[in-house]
Amino acid sequence: MKVEGRNAVFELLKTDKEIDKILVRKDLKDDASKRLINVIRSHRVKIQLVDKYVIDKESVNGHSQGFIAFVSDYKYFDTEDILEGCEDKENALIVILSEVTDPHNLGSVIRVCECAGVDGIIIGKDRCASVSDTVMRISEGALNHVKVARVTNLNTEIEKLQNNGFWVFGAEAGGESMYDVDLTGKTCLVIGGEDTGVKRLTQTKCDKMISIPMYGKVNSLNASVACGVAVYEVIRQRINKK
Amino acid sequence: MKVEGRNAVFELLKTDKEIDKILVRKDLKDDASKRLINVIRSHRVKIQLVDKYVIDKESVNGHSQGFIAFVSDYKYFDTEDILEGCEDKENALIVILSEVTDPHNLGSVIRVCECAGVDGIIIGKDRCASVSDTVMRISEGALNHVKVARVTNLNTEIEKLQNNGFWVFGAEAGGESMYDVDLTGKTCLVIGGEDTGVKRLTQTKCDKMISIPMYGKVNSLNASVACGVAVYEVIRQRINKK
Repeated sequence: MKVEGRNAVFELLKTDKEIDKILVRKDLKDDASKRLINVIRSHRVKIQLVDKYVIDKESVNGHSQGFIAFVSDYKYFDTEDILEGCEDKENALIVILSEVTDPHNLGSVIRVCECAGVDGIIIGKDRCASVSDTVMRISEGALNHVKVARVTNLNTEIEKLQNNGFWVFGAEAGGESMYDVDLTGKTCLVIGGEDTGVKRLTQTKCDKMISIPMYGKVNSLNASVACGVAVYEVIRQRINKK
Repeated sequence: MKVEGRNAVFELLKTDKEIDKILVRKDLKDDASKRLINVIRSHRVKIQLVDKYVIDKESVNGHSQGFIAFVSDYKYFDTEDILEGCEDKENALIVILSEVTDPHNLGSVIRVCECAGVDGIIIGKDRCASVSDTVMRISEGALNHVKVARVTNLNTEIEKLQNNGFWVFGAEAGGESMYDVDLTGKTCLVIGGEDTGVKRLTQTKCDKMISIPMYGKVNSLNASVACGVAVYEVIRQRINKK
């Protein structure tokens, strides 16, 4: 859904609606526009500065005044919602995505998580794709059957999970081979972005870093493939232990 | 690389160059064009009938006469090349792709196969993406380090592999859980396309059908994620057996 115009965007910011991003015409010089840009920044909403023709193309009503906000139709869950669903599950599994910026990858991650019966996915607000139409489409409907939470700070969520009995494993080259690590019990997997991997501070919050063994020269997996391989290793260990 | 014009395309067909597809202007009515279309069909090369403006847009030299062939810069291997590389390997692993039509998926499959140290990938000429610039890009350079063969008939290649001591497993819903199947030794995995899965005739050629356990409501994985999960289960069993 698009919200256009200075006032409408200003009012939107007061609500708790999830804003994916706000397109702002890059050559705005008037005071009212500058003030609104500051308000948007203070709400830590993503701003994309674009040329006039982009605004004109995206505007539905022709009265954008240089501001078009993209509001997510998806109603995110909280980490608490996900934890509530895990309470009685000895083998709960949660996936945290750290800086997965490509919507195709996010959609594909949601799809594999749903297939594997993951209890919830937590994504960051910063430098992470949010649930958009593309993500919906790529997930092939999986988004309707798995809880996705969007949070400001992944590191505090990791602590929250740990306090609820979860072991948190970060997937990163250099970690212990995941085939040598016990992944049964309440488990959280942290999967890194395409370029950045799992951030260093986030790594220090994890209980252990694990890795997918690599035998090639390229040695970097697409985030959704890495997520699939790691999630299914957790699944396998659980089947095996029964 | 593009080859344009009736004569140039006709000469191209006499070579052993890999032709991805030939764009043909859809309203050609003259005899010379009709003859060439028949020759292209007899070579079983993919024809895409398009409007004049598409031809005009794609033409580099402006003399296409309604015919533009796309030649792959990639030099495919033969199944024999792949088998040669496997000769001394007790645990060789080959992946066959049946009707994976999306270039992004093919690129992503090549990437995960390279990371897992797969010995070769065999793709079909029919209804399967071929190695294009997009595939090259998505593979993130992996294409330079793994052998890809393109064959006319996957079923005869499966027999060839079986005659060389390979066990051929098709991945398809309804097969035995892959966690219950011994995947060590010379192994070939057949991965199906996004919509079609592994074709029925191909399934009958496989030694066994195996499946990735599914716990959701969507229950269909992206081809590259499915390939990653299955390939890494083969890898795990080998590590485990050592």
